[in-house]
Amino acid sequence: MQKPLLTVESLAIGDELLDGRLADGNSRDLADSLAPLGLVLSRVTAVGDDEGTIAEAVLEAAARADVVVTSGGLGPTSDDLTVQGVARAAGCAVRLDEATFARIKERFAERGLPMPDNNRRQAELPETARLLGNDVGIAPGFVTLVGGAEVYSFPGVPREYRWLRDQHLLPALSARLGATLGGVERRTLRCLGITESGLGAALEDLQRQNPDVLVQYRTSFPENHARLVVRGAAASAARADALAEEARRAIGGAVYAIGERGLAELLVAELGRRGQTLALAESCTGGLVGKLVTDVAGASAVFRGALVAYANEVKEAALGVPTALLEEHGAVSELVAAAMAEGARARLGADFAISVTGVAGPGGGTPDKPVGTVCFGLAHERGVETKRRLLLGATREMIRELAAAVALRWLLSRLERQAPAHEGPVAS
Amino acid sequence: MQKPLLTVESLAIGDELLDGRLADGNSRDLADSLAPLGLVLSRVTAVGDDEGTIAEAVLEAAARADVVVTSGGLGPTSDDLTVQGVARAAGCAVRLDEATFARIKERFAERGLPMPDNNRRQAELPETARLLGNDVGIAPGFVTLVGGAEVYSFPGVPREYRWLRDQHLLPALSARLGATLGGVERRTLRCLGITESGLGAALEDLQRQNPDVLVQYRTSFPENHARLVVRGAAASAARADALAEEARRAIGGAVYAIGERGLAELLVAELGRRGQTLALAESCTGGLVGKLVTDVAGASAVFRGALVAYANEVKEAALGVPTALLEEHGAVSELVAAAMAEGARARLGADFAISVTGVAGPGGGTPDKPVGTVCFGLAHERGVETKRRLLLGATREMIRELAAAVALRWLLSRLERQAPAHEGPVAS
Repeated sequence: MQKPLLTVESLAIGDELLDGRLADGNSRDLADSLAPLGLVLSRVTAVGDDEGTIAEAVLEAAARADVVVTSGGLGPTSDDLTVQGVARAAGCAVRLDEATFARIKERFAERGLPMPDNNRRQAELPETARLLGNDVGIAPGFVTLVGGAEVYSFPGVPREYRWLRDQHLLPALSARLGATLGGVERRTLRCLGITESGLGAALEDLQRQNPDVLVQYRTSFPENHARLVVRGAAASAARADALAEEARRAIGGAVYAIGERGLAELLVAELGRRGQTLALAESCTGGLVGKLVTDVAGASAVFRGALVAYANEVKEAALGVPTALLEEHGAVSELVAAAMAEGARARLGADFAISVTGVAGPGGGTPDKPVGTVCFGLAHERGVETKRRLLLGATREMIRELAAAVALRWLLSRLERQAPAHEGPVAS
Repeated sequence: MQKPLLTVESLAIGDELLDGRLADGNSRDLADSLAPLGLVLSRVTAVGDDEGTIAEAVLEAAARADVVVTSGGLGPTSDDLTVQGVARAAGCAVRLDEATFARIKERFAERGLPMPDNNRRQAELPETARLLGNDVGIAPGFVTLVGGAEVYSFPGVPREYRWLRDQHLLPALSARLGATLGGVERRTLRCLGITESGLGAALEDLQRQNPDVLVQYRTSFPENHARLVVRGAAASAARADALAEEARRAIGGAVYAIGERGLAELLVAELGRRGQTLALAESCTGGLVGKLVTDVAGASAVFRGALVAYANEVKEAALGVPTALLEEHGAVSELVAAAMAEGARARLGADFAISVTGVAGPGGGTPDKPVGTVCFGLAHERGVETKRRLLLGATREMIRELAAAVALRWLLSRLERQAPAHEGPVAS
């Protein structure tokens, strides 16, 4: 790891983080939001709702880092003790912020509710702290100097945490870095069908030739992403774009897009742009492909529907797959995938239909068609195509997720190749 | 929090935990596995791949806790430094374990592969450590005394981490607690349609009357679970069962099962027991209900398939919903839900069919049918029933997940009420 420009620690506070009730999502979220600034966390700590422990953890973190970000413990109940713990670490008293208290009372009055006594606690902060306004919740954030470190304290509710982080923390950090660094540009290469170490190997030369560029890797199964962060005086959109294109060439066909939008989102947008529609015929994925497409708000403009044909009789009756085909080649075969796609396209009246039929396991594998064998069909106005893949070494869940991604990516690539007058890169 | 019987800290090691690449799942997993023993973690820390930082974090944790569990940093590459860090904390050298080294070489030889030099590192451990065998991976675990604390070190790969934890850590902790405590019994009440605070209020009396029982809450949207942990000499299966039944009565209809199996799993099992089959007609859920049912391995024995009818024309053509019904009442109506369920049952040839049609948002809401309005149909041999729910205050994703759970639960409850000769509780 390079010597960091600024050291930042995350301190998550709450018993629910220690007894298994809740995972500490805020720290990872913070790490993710620091990455584009070229920063990583130097340590993450989670402690329970105890004033002495909080104070001790704040002091330890403040002794090591330039910036500490606490999350949680700002609620109205007696086990919310972050204000008290930070005040103790800063060696100051707790004060009531009258303006905040007035606004809390007002919020309750607006709803015609009496304010419970303990909500007064949410207007308190360490005497020496500076208040950070919270437009999306009751408890404000605050920043306190502890030794030489700035200690930011935010509520634990993820929506409020992110809002305060984006409004108050990131601009302050950017400003501190900006004085010496200039701007930051980032480009994300979204890949399917390449491992993280494969990505690393593909980008080795680019990294060596551009030592000032930070290359970050993220796994979001079944995808792997590489993010290029261009910092400093040399940062410019044009250089970032050029590097992203160089990275795309180095990685090859595994890159399905450069940008922040995922497979289903890109596919829905591309179909929408063309005024074309999609239907699905799913077997082993059992509805997962349709679920992914309809995760996208506004999918109804392009998505007709899906036939989930789990039983062979349903493949025959609802999709018109010939009995002879099923008997001769089995449900997991390219010929059946072709018939499923054609059946869905005709019966659901769509421009394109994708089919997926495979052995997701754990049972059902044969020497001929081991667990992980998946056949795909793609029907369009000019006919139907098929392909077969062996998705090995994965669990039932992983095989299904991978199969769904392969299906969506197939149509997306096809549409992009068909687009002669394509304006600019696929994703922003 | 009660004074703990044993203090346990988790220390996760790896740069990928600090730059946003990976969330620290092992610590939460550890917390979850300690809960049935009545233990909570007292602190969770994540640090990067730096020998000095690891040693320092181990020493700090060992000074505070009885048991420290590290995860990660046991791989073959030069940035895997947990062995070195723990050895430095223990004030000892690093030794090569010849038996482990021989086994690693053997593993490569079996596959006909040359062993890369750096895999030798995975046979190293701190001089004073005791080796803990790993049957599911290359790197063994080990336990080292640092001050008065036992420091367990496990690989970060979740599957290996869990295996070593279950084989080596949990039995050791149980033994230490068992000497003073007796056994542990736990019962999980799985609920839908009640908030965590609602659950807490419902179980307040039970908790007060049984102060020795630990009541733990877990949210797994859209479900909330309450887990009763009965410890000590009083722990017996009969007492735990009686308390679980008391809790079920106190919570009421929100409890759908007592046990470890989820909605879809219970539904697939119950249909399988009866030799009956299921079909689906999905609109707003877009395939999600089918996805949940087919997440269960072996669902093919009972699941026929689903018609995902997103477009109205598909509801007409593929499900036989009358055009007049759609025009007069709209796609989100109980009459259309009834026709969808009947159409799916007839066309997919199932004993039961469930339908879901609603407004998941963010667009598409009207004063009459705001975002969150969902209609359900349930078709069976004696006819069809419908219901309408308003699932408010949630995101598109949450409305869809909630709708899918309501649909599955409806059929599950129906089957359980129909089962006169039902043997014992629904779930183990």
